[in-house]
Amino acid sequence: MRLIDLVIKKRDGRAHSPEEIRFIAQAAAAGSAPDYQLAAWLMAVILNGMDKAETVAMTREMAASGSRLCLKGYGKPKVDKHSTGGVGDGVSIALAPLAAAAGLVVPMMSGRGLGHTGGTLDKLEAIRGFKVQLPEARIKRQLSAIGVCMFGQTEDLAPADRKLYHLRDATGTVESLPLIVSSILSKKLAEDLDALVLDVKTGSGAFFSDYRQSQEAASALVATAGGLGLKAAALITSMDQPLGRYVGNALEVRQAVEILHGDASAGDYLECLLALGGWMLRLGGLARTADEGVERCERLIRDGSALKRFREMVRLQGGDPKVADDPDRLPKASSMLPVAAPRAGFIAGLAAKTVGHAALLLGAGRTRMEDKIDYGAGIIVERKLGDRVRQGEVIARLYGSDAAKLRESRKKYLEAVRIAPSAPPAPPVVRKVICPAA
Amino acid sequence: MRLIDLVIKKRDGRAHSPEEIRFIAQAAAAGSAPDYQLAAWLMAVILNGMDKAETVAMTREMAASGSRLCLKGYGKPKVDKHSTGGVGDGVSIALAPLAAAAGLVVPMMSGRGLGHTGGTLDKLEAIRGFKVQLPEARIKRQLSAIGVCMFGQTEDLAPADRKLYHLRDATGTVESLPLIVSSILSKKLAEDLDALVLDVKTGSGAFFSDYRQSQEAASALVATAGGLGLKAAALITSMDQPLGRYVGNALEVRQAVEILHGDASAGDYLECLLALGGWMLRLGGLARTADEGVERCERLIRDGSALKRFREMVRLQGGDPKVADDPDRLPKASSMLPVAAPRAGFIAGLAAKTVGHAALLLGAGRTRMEDKIDYGAGIIVERKLGDRVRQGEVIARLYGSDAAKLRESRKKYLEAVRIAPSAPPAPPVVRKVICPAA
Repeated sequence: MRLIDLVIKKRDGRAHSPEEIRFIAQAAAAGSAPDYQLAAWLMAVILNGMDKAETVAMTREMAASGSRLCLKGYGKPKVDKHSTGGVGDGVSIALAPLAAAAGLVVPMMSGRGLGHTGGTLDKLEAIRGFKVQLPEARIKRQLSAIGVCMFGQTEDLAPADRKLYHLRDATGTVESLPLIVSSILSKKLAEDLDALVLDVKTGSGAFFSDYRQSQEAASALVATAGGLGLKAAALITSMDQPLGRYVGNALEVRQAVEILHGDASAGDYLECLLALGGWMLRLGGLARTADEGVERCERLIRDGSALKRFREMVRLQGGDPKVADDPDRLPKASSMLPVAAPRAGFIAGLAAKTVGHAALLLGAGRTRMEDKIDYGAGIIVERKLGDRVRQGEVIARLYGSDAAKLRESRKKYLEAVRIAPSAPPAPPVVRKVICPAA
Repeated sequence: MRLIDLVIKKRDGRAHSPEEIRFIAQAAAAGSAPDYQLAAWLMAVILNGMDKAETVAMTREMAASGSRLCLKGYGKPKVDKHSTGGVGDGVSIALAPLAAAAGLVVPMMSGRGLGHTGGTLDKLEAIRGFKVQLPEARIKRQLSAIGVCMFGQTEDLAPADRKLYHLRDATGTVESLPLIVSSILSKKLAEDLDALVLDVKTGSGAFFSDYRQSQEAASALVATAGGLGLKAAALITSMDQPLGRYVGNALEVRQAVEILHGDASAGDYLECLLALGGWMLRLGGLARTADEGVERCERLIRDGSALKRFREMVRLQGGDPKVADDPDRLPKASSMLPVAAPRAGFIAGLAAKTVGHAALLLGAGRTRMEDKIDYGAGIIVERKLGDRVRQGEVIARLYGSDAAKLRESRKKYLEAVRIAPSAPPAPPVVRKVICPAA
């Protein structure tokens, strides 16, 4: 078999056999395929598509291209969550220990931030000492001990995906649904899970800004997972405004800590957290319905079990466990600049993507993978969609270290804000659940 | 401007501005563009196309990406011919000196063979001592002296095309009409021509096997040349069977010599040669009609002027000029194996591509660019389409040095041959002429 013939086959719009998909994945993983041939193939895929069988095979073969986390013998269901990414979406930080406290094993493999969305690993590293690059043995030990570990992708996990992901980023071939689906699921498949809950964000700050696209993505993810024997459900959740009250790395850890302490002021964040937790418990077989799972999660927050699990996780991963009780110990930016409402009315628009860019300007994220992050930088969103504001009232606080960047960020933040004479209906957080057995 | 944005633009099916095309050509020429981005762009181009304005800009910018042959002050029209390539198509070897004898300046830049078609440079190198890689000053001197020089593409001529051509070959993106057109014309544009005659082959042995495709290609070539101020005509000529009596490097030089000596036994070859010569003279302004040009060419063959010019060219380029009078001086293969007609009837099929592959097996061509060529290897085609054959009669002679390869080649040759109870009508050599002013 020759890669060039497979490039031509996909160029001509024909479907690959499972053997051909295996050949491509192995060639990508082994580094034996020239980048230019893979790039041409990726462009042919984005333009000519892949069908469900090809997507299933691609996912399976990318997972099989490296080693798997072999998580046997825990006697508990292994369930993970994956979000397609949004602004202020640090839900994983609270969700993983919560689900573990409920009795699941949660091997949560996460990524880093790029562009207007943050990454869970960066957020966790805002906790002084917290380690995310862990050897497999340590991950397993921690999962045995407390049922939760949050870690970065190991070098030899789905190397074909790693290779193709970098190439896609550099060749304008990111936005292919079969490639997105197989990239997400191949890594999850290599985690040896019993079930997976997908949080497919929709709206201006999401990868899929269009609702129809989000539905297609959610359906494709659930169907492909099903084709691989992995139980999955997808929640389509709103990303029209930032989730919760905080955007930025240390600030999103603070958000998780506040929530686990029972603070319900970030209503949309809490709703998203509970909905995902409910579905994780249901798919993991620890609740008969998602609603029952939600109630269980609420109890585990109320009684402090989830917070306790978070504290243990931080300690076991080398971080300062006191942040669980005193989030002021997290890194802080040196300066704060308030954003005032330019006029009175209701917040009728708070474009999440633009807010993400405002946070990026403050140093909270990366425009290139090699950029350094200022963990203390970020935004407190004081007023959200539907809130009434007076002229001059503080609607957000920007945290950073550079006065010029703070002013630039304020300008950007104001671009995100639309104030109207009346309030729009508050958008629902969970817009739809896609589950084969629902 | 960033190449990745242009990749995305073409992926999305949008047309490039001339500035964008320039950016791409310059990035390709300078080697500053990563191969994988160019490869992704090429795949997007083959699938989403380029319009006429883009093709014109691409041709212009690829020509401008390197140095040009500056051929000023000859006081004679400069006209070249380009063929899309076929089997036995060594017409250039006779045509270039013939057109020069008629009063044109013919800076004939040629290429090497790959796959089932041969290359003019390889054929010329079958003449002992003949040099095709010449410094520009020497090319110009020879054009001044005798009006004809046959040479290989210089390093710094259209480097963007050189880069993209190699990548296309390796990424399944050869068959894009705008890329084919701009590749052919950019090199010709860099030759500083007054006019160009294109020989677009059609049929089983041609790059464009389908007649409709050949027409589209011919029209696109002529229209794009017109858009660049280069006068051009395209002749669509038949490549259903090998052209002339010989296939192979030394053998095709022999064909040219025999024709220039007035031998008319290879009727289709002679017809193709005269038609192309006629159009070169017409576009160069040395004949009022193509027919008048044909008559002039016939006279120059009859009176020995064309042969004389060929002899001078061989001598000036370091080759053995005596081959012009004694083609037996050309390299010869050590063995000959005849191919006998398996049954009586008429030759109803002689698939040119398969004959090309039979020649390839003998060592007459390359399957990879690094392969060595056996100049003496090749095929004498004794019977052509429409010829009556008796069972056991010799229909071809195979020349090579390896007995096993000769037998393999004979098997291949017989695959090309179809013998039927009746003769099909002989196909016309020139099927159509496309000329804006015709």
